[in-house]
Amino acid sequence: MRQRNKPWAKEKLAEYPQYVIQSPDQWKGKWHEVFEKNQPLHIEIGTGKGRFISGMAKANPDINYIGIELQDSVIVTALDHIIEAELPNVKLMNVNANDLHTFFEKGEVDRVYLNFSDPWPKSRHAKRRLTYKTFLKTYEEILVDQGEIHFKTDNQGLFEYSLTSFSEYGLLLKYVSLDLHNSNFDGNIMTEYEEKFSNKGNRIYRCEVQYR
Amino acid sequence: MRQRNKPWAKEKLAEYPQYVIQSPDQWKGKWHEVFEKNQPLHIEIGTGKGRFISGMAKANPDINYIGIELQDSVIVTALDHIIEAELPNVKLMNVNANDLHTFFEKGEVDRVYLNFSDPWPKSRHAKRRLTYKTFLKTYEEILVDQGEIHFKTDNQGLFEYSLTSFSEYGLLLKYVSLDLHNSNFDGNIMTEYEEKFSNKGNRIYRCEVQYR
Ligand SMILES: C[S@@+](CC[C@H](N)C(=O)[O-])C[C@H]1O[C@@H](n2cnc3c(N)ncnc32)[C@H](O)[C@@H]1O
Ligand SMILES: C[S@@+](CC[C@H](N)C(=O)[O-])C[C@H]1O[C@@H](n2cnc3c(N)ncnc32)[C@H](O)[C@@H]1O
Repeated sequence: MRQRNKPWAKEKLAEYPQYVIQSPDQWKGKWHEVFEKNQPLHIEIGTGKGRFISGMAKANPDINYIGIELQDSVIVTALDHIIEAELPNVKLMNVNANDLHTFFEKGEVDRVYLNFSDPWPKSRHAKRRLTYKTFLKTYEEILVDQGEIHFKTDNQGLFEYSLTSFSEYGLLLKYVSLDLHNSNFDGNIMTEYEEKFSNKGNRIYRCEVQYR
Repeated sequence: MRQRNKPWAKEKLAEYPQYVIQSPDQWKGKWHEVFEKNQPLHIEIGTGKGRFISGMAKANPDINYIGIELQDSVIVTALDHIIEAELPNVKLMNVNANDLHTFFEKGEVDRVYLNFSDPWPKSRHAKRRLTYKTFLKTYEEILVDQGEIHFKTDNQGLFEYSLTSFSEYGLLLKYVSLDLHNSNFDGNIMTEYEEKFSNKGNRIYRCEVQYR
């Protein structure tokens, strides 16, 4: 997600510790203390401007959510949504998904969402895709047994790649839609990229996979 | 495939025993005797009018092929292609795929092709889909270890269903294309249905899965 630089973003993120987790490694093993209610925890990796994670938190008060995003200049927009919505069950983390195991104990996370992840189309960049096997291992290290990844994208190449990567890793494909917006899938919450690319006429692909 | 009835079809199939295997159960365990050359055996299930199987046999003289088709009034057209092409490495079988294990010994078949299989869209008919788990078991019973199924279709629902069915069965998804005719896949041989539906503008889906 390209953004103009926002030199004030880091500072603003620090001003809202109730929404933006500061030094998240301190909560490893005790995430239930961070939220008002002790209930399942779903995280989104590459949250961007946060429309999905705040929409999900509003729609599902019985789930806790964390949106994880690398770029401070992007996540700061997600913070605005969350300040406005005043929801007790959603937080943000301005960190790199590479380091997830330093923030979460095995079994602390119930589901991982990946939405419109950067496609990295060149094969020499495959390792950077959030569905590359090293990331699948990282997610496994923090998920409950039989934890799930829910993934959507408009990028055909990334979706094809990801289906084979999931299979090679041994994940179970529980659900797949090759045209989400013309399917009977209920309760879809659009992301910023989803709105943009579906307006252009792109199909949206979606799948749910499970560790076994 | 709807066809007008051809009362003479059975008779014609019997007139060409060099191309149409008669009482195929007699060859169980000795299929190498049926062909001129002892080389890998690939079968197609639901061959229809045979354009694919005869095209593949022509393009790959180092593979033996058998086209399997239930309806005599359809397979008789495949016979015409094969008579004309005079190929030593392709045969036909007018049988039901349900009975494959009575015709082939475990390990006698190296690959199964499924092309534009009947979609059976109603969920109460799922058992009739050629990618339903009972069929996956039947294929496993005749394939070599790590044998493969290569599947293409324009039917989105059948393709989605099949991806999950393959995964549930534990098959490895080695390759998937969500738009075959705009991919870099080499050497595609079109089937009759493929030509018809791609001319209508339908996308063609294709995948390769492997037993593990
Ligand atoms: C293409 S954007 C999609 C944003 C949002 N999910 C949407 O659908 O609108 C991908 C986002 O993932 C973030 N990202 C990429 N790699 C990441 C990583 N390793 N850890 C955290 N965020 C990452 C990028 O900074 C970018 O904002
Ligand atoms: C939709 S047609 C496709 C024909 C051809 N593969 C093509 O792509 O043009 C499916 C064919 O599969 C055949 N078929 C369906 N079930 C079968 C079975 N159990 N055994 C053998 N053939 C079968 C049907 O008779 C029909 O001709």
